[in-house]
Amino acid sequence: MTPPATVEDVAVHGLTDTIGVTIPNPLTCEDVPNRRAKAGKLNGGVAAATNSEFFKAPAPHKPLAIRLDHRMSQEAKLRKSTVLKSLAKHMATPGMISLGGGLPSSEYFPFESMDIKVPAVGKFLEEETKTTGKTMHLGKHDVKEGKSCASGSAQMVRWVTEHTEIVHNPPYRDWACTLSAGSTSSLEMVYRMFLEKGDFVISEEPRTAGLQFVGVKMDSEGMIAEALDELLENWDVATRGARKPFLLYTVPTGQNPTGSTQGRERRQQIYKVAQKHDLILIEDEPYYFLQMQPYTGPGAEPAPLPKNHDEFLKSLVPSLLSMDVDGRVIRLDSFSKVLAPGSRCGWVVASAQVCERLQRHGEVSTQHAAGFSQVILHRLLDEEWGHGGYLDWLVNLRVQYTTRRDALMKACDDHLPKEVATWTPPAAGMFHWINLDVSKHPEFGKKSVAEIEQAVFRTSVASGVLVTPGSYFMADQENELEKVFFRATFAAAEFDTMSEAIRRFGLAIRKVFGLPQ
Amino acid sequence: MTPPATVEDVAVHGLTDTIGVTIPNPLTCEDVPNRRAKAGKLNGGVAAATNSEFFKAPAPHKPLAIRLDHRMSQEAKLRKSTVLKSLAKHMATPGMISLGGGLPSSEYFPFESMDIKVPAVGKFLEEETKTTGKTMHLGKHDVKEGKSCASGSAQMVRWVTEHTEIVHNPPYRDWACTLSAGSTSSLEMVYRMFLEKGDFVISEEPRTAGLQFVGVKMDSEGMIAEALDELLENWDVATRGARKPFLLYTVPTGQNPTGSTQGRERRQQIYKVAQKHDLILIEDEPYYFLQMQPYTGPGAEPAPLPKNHDEFLKSLVPSLLSMDVDGRVIRLDSFSKVLAPGSRCGWVVASAQVCERLQRHGEVSTQHAAGFSQVILHRLLDEEWGHGGYLDWLVNLRVQYTTRRDALMKACDDHLPKEVATWTPPAAGMFHWINLDVSKHPEFGKKSVAEIEQAVFRTSVASGVLVTPGSYFMADQENELEKVFFRATFAAAEFDTMSEAIRRFGLAIRKVFGLPQ
Repeated sequence: MTPPATVEDVAVHGLTDTIGVTIPNPLTCEDVPNRRAKAGKLNGGVAAATNSEFFKAPAPHKPLAIRLDHRMSQEAKLRKSTVLKSLAKHMATPGMISLGGGLPSSEYFPFESMDIKVPAVGKFLEEETKTTGKTMHLGKHDVKEGKSCASGSAQMVRWVTEHTEIVHNPPYRDWACTLSAGSTSSLEMVYRMFLEKGDFVISEEPRTAGLQFVGVKMDSEGMIAEALDELLENWDVATRGARKPFLLYTVPTGQNPTGSTQGRERRQQIYKVAQKHDLILIEDEPYYFLQMQPYTGPGAEPAPLPKNHDEFLKSLVPSLLSMDVDGRVIRLDSFSKVLAPGSRCGWVVASAQVCERLQRHGEVSTQHAAGFSQVILHRLLDEEWGHGGYLDWLVNLRVQYTTRRDALMKACDDHLPKEVATWTPPAAGMFHWINLDVSKHPEFGKKSVAEIEQAVFRTSVASGVLVTPGSYFMADQENELEKVFFRATFAAAEFDTMSEAIRRFGLAIRKVFGLPQ
Repeated sequence: MTPPATVEDVAVHGLTDTIGVTIPNPLTCEDVPNRRAKAGKLNGGVAAATNSEFFKAPAPHKPLAIRLDHRMSQEAKLRKSTVLKSLAKHMATPGMISLGGGLPSSEYFPFESMDIKVPAVGKFLEEETKTTGKTMHLGKHDVKEGKSCASGSAQMVRWVTEHTEIVHNPPYRDWACTLSAGSTSSLEMVYRMFLEKGDFVISEEPRTAGLQFVGVKMDSEGMIAEALDELLENWDVATRGARKPFLLYTVPTGQNPTGSTQGRERRQQIYKVAQKHDLILIEDEPYYFLQMQPYTGPGAEPAPLPKNHDEFLKSLVPSLLSMDVDGRVIRLDSFSKVLAPGSRCGWVVASAQVCERLQRHGEVSTQHAAGFSQVILHRLLDEEWGHGGYLDWLVNLRVQYTTRRDALMKACDDHLPKEVATWTPPAAGMFHWINLDVSKHPEFGKKSVAEIEQAVFRTSVASGVLVTPGSYFMADQENELEKVFFRATFAAAEFDTMSEAIRRFGLAIRKVFGLPQ
C-alpha cells in the first residue's frame, strides 16, 4: 500500500483548486495486475487500434491540456489519416475471411522462434546471468502480434502508459503515450509539428549545429530560468529576423555535454517561465534513470541506497512532465541508455492532441518502432521483469553508475592539476564536464582559445586518452571560442582504465599549460 | 562460373559506347567469398565508418552519375555533418583509452544472448523447420558490433551492396547503398531532399492521399510511358500553379493496389521519357521478389521452375536500376514482404551523392535501422544462408505465391460473374485487382458510382468477406468516382478459405447487380 497523496504532491501537481474531488492514490507497480484484471482482455492483434486512454486511471479531477492549434505548423495541420485503417474493425466479425490486408501470412517469414537470455530480477550482474539468467521464448506468432500499426503494438503502449503513470503521474487529464522510432526521430517530428522556416528553437547554450538555435546561459544546474525569461522578454523580432520563439528543447537530467542536472526548484522556475511566455517544453530524458546517489566526496561514507520502489522514485528529481498542469511538456523517453542502444524504440508523452499528430506523421515516415525491438523489449519489461523488476534493474544501474562516477571523481582529484582544472561532480547521466582556466595558459592572449583547446586535445590523444573537446558541441562553430571544456564519459571505458586515462589527461594538461609534471 | 556478359546484357546496361574496355563478369553468389577474401578484414566495430565503395567491384568502364545539385531542396543543401564522428578514427591507435564516446559499456545492457530458429537452406517450409531448422546464436558482443552509426553496420551495408551488384549490377560507377529505417521513411526523406512547397510528384493514377500528386494513366502493365511524356510535354506552370515536376514515384512490380507489373520494354520506355525530361525516378520495390511463375491458365501445365540462381535472376523483369546509365534512379528496397514485416530495416540504392544526403538526414532523424533487426537479419542472410541461400528462399516464395495466385485465379474463374467482373492475372506481388463494370448495374445513372461500390462492399462484408474498395486508394477522395474496383490479397488468408471468400464475394456482386444467384 502507498500513502495517500500528500499535501506536497498536491502542491507539486497543481491540484490545489480541486479540493472536494477524491484524488486517487498514484499507481504503483503492485497495483498494475489489479488494474489489468479489471480492464479485461487486451485486443493486441496485428494492427489493432490502440490508445493510452485504455490503460490510464480515470482522472476527472485533473484539468484538460491546453490546445496547441495556434502553434501548429502548416504541414502539421494538413496531415490526414488513411481510410484503409477503417477496414480492421470488420475483422472482429466471427467467420469473416479477409482478402483485404496488406501483410503476407506468417508462414512466409522465416523466423520460427527466439530464445533470449536475460538477467533474473535481482541478479543483474553479467557473471550472475551466466548461472541464474532466464531464457525468454518468443514464437513466430508472438512476433506477428508484436508487429503493429503506426500506434505501435497495444501491449507496448500499455506498458509505457503504466510506467509513465507510476513514475510521473502527469497532473492533467488527457496525456497520452505514443511509441517512437527513437527520440531523435521524435524530436525531428516535433520540430516539424511546430516550426516554420526561419523560426528559432530555444536550448541550452552549448548545442551541436543543425536547426536555428538560440542558447540560454547555464550554471551547474543547467539552464537558468531568469536568463530564459530575459531572453523572451527582450526578444526583438526586427533584429532577430524571426518571431518570438515558443519551442524550448532541454535535457534536464545529465545534460549532454555538460552533465548538469536541473534540481526540482530549477525545473519549477523554468515551468513558470514557460507558462508566462506560453512555451512548449521538449523534455528529452535519455539519462533520467541514470540519476546517481548523492556525491559524498573522496573517502566519505556513501549515502544509503533507496530501500524500496517508492523510496527510489522519490529519490529522483521530478520530471517537468510531473509538474505539467497545462499539457505543454513533450517528453521524449528512451531505452537507449538503460536497456539497449539502437533498439530504435522509444516513446513520447504529451497531450493527446500532440500524440495524434505524431501518429499521423509516423504513418508516412517511420511507421512504427521495429517489430523485433518491440517484442523483445515488451517480453523483458512486461512478462519477464514486470514494472517492479524494471525499477530494480534501474536501481542496479544507479549503483553501477555511482561507483563509476565516484571512481572518476577520485581520479580527477588525484591527477588533474587543480590550478587550471575545475569541475562539478555530475548528479546524473554519463558525462563529466571539465573546465580548464585558459587564462592560466602561458600564451593566453597570444594564442586563440581554440588553439589552446586543440593543443590539449592533440597532446591528450598523443598521450593515449580520448576526451571530447567542448568546441565540438558549440552550435556556432564560426564564433570565436571563449572557454575550454572537455567532456569525459565514465559509462564506457573499462573500469580499471579510467584512472589511468585521467592520469594521462592530467599530464597532457600540465604539458600544454607548462605546469610541473 | 557464369558466362561473360552477353550482347543483350551490354545493350540493356547501356554499355555499347565502352567497346575496348574489358567488362568484368557480373558478380555471382559464388564469387562473393573470393572477393571478400581479397578485400581483407572488415572494420565492423561499433560506429565504424562504412561505405558501399569498400564492397563493390571497380568499374572504370562505367560512367559517373549525373549530379543532382540543381534538384536539391534548400533543406537538403543545408544539412551538415557532425564533427563528433571524427573522434572515432583515433580509436584505431593501440593502447588508446576512450572517455570520448556517448554509449555505455555493454555490461549495462541486459540482453546476454539470443538463439533464433530459422529454416535451413532448401528446407523452407514451416513443418520442415520444426525438425531441420537451424539455431543461430547471437552473443551480447555481436549485438554491440551490430549497433552502429547513421550509415548502419558495416556488415549489413556490405551484404546489401553485394546483393545489389548480384541482382541489378547498376550500369554507372558511383552507385551506393545506404541502410534505412524502412522504405516509407526513406521515401519521406527523398521527398524532402527534392521538393519545395507546392511541388507535384508524378505517380501511378490510383494513389492514396498525402502529398500533391499528379497521376499518370495505367494499363495492365502499369504506368503508360506515352501518357507520362504527354503530361510533361504539356505541363503548364500557370494553370498548374507549380513548376514542371521532376520527381516520379513508381512501384514497377506488383503495384499496390492494382497488382500490375511493368514489363522490360515498358520500363525502358519510362526510362527514356525520364531522360528526355530529366526526371528522378523513385523505384519502390517491396514486391520485386514476389514475381511469380507465368500464369498458364486454369488446368494448364505449370511453367518449369528456374533451375539455378542464374536462371532465377534472368526470370525477373529487370529493374529500372539495372537500366540506369545516368544515376537518376533511387531504388527503395525492403525485407518487409519477404523476410520480416516491421523489421524497419531496408536500404536505398542511388548515386553516392543522394546516399550521402540521406545519411546526413538520418543523423538528425531515424539515426539507423534498429540494432536488433540489423543483427538478426545479417546473421540470417550472411552467416546462415549466404547470398545463394537467400535466392533459394526467394525461389521458395515464388513457388508459394504462384500456388496461391493460381488458386485465387481458379476461384475467380469459378465464382465471379463474368458478365460484370474482369481482371488480369497478376504477375507479381500479392494483390489482385478486380474490375466491376458499373454500367451493368440496374440503377446505373440513378445511383452514383460511389454508392454502387459501397453497396458491393457492404454486401460483401455482410456475406463474410473483406475486400478493399478501390476508392480507398484514390488520391482525390473528393472527386467523383468513375470506376469500381476491388483489391483482394492472396498472400494473407488461410489457403483453404480463399475459394470460399471469392464465392461469397461473387454472391455479393450478383446480389447488388441483380444477377441470378
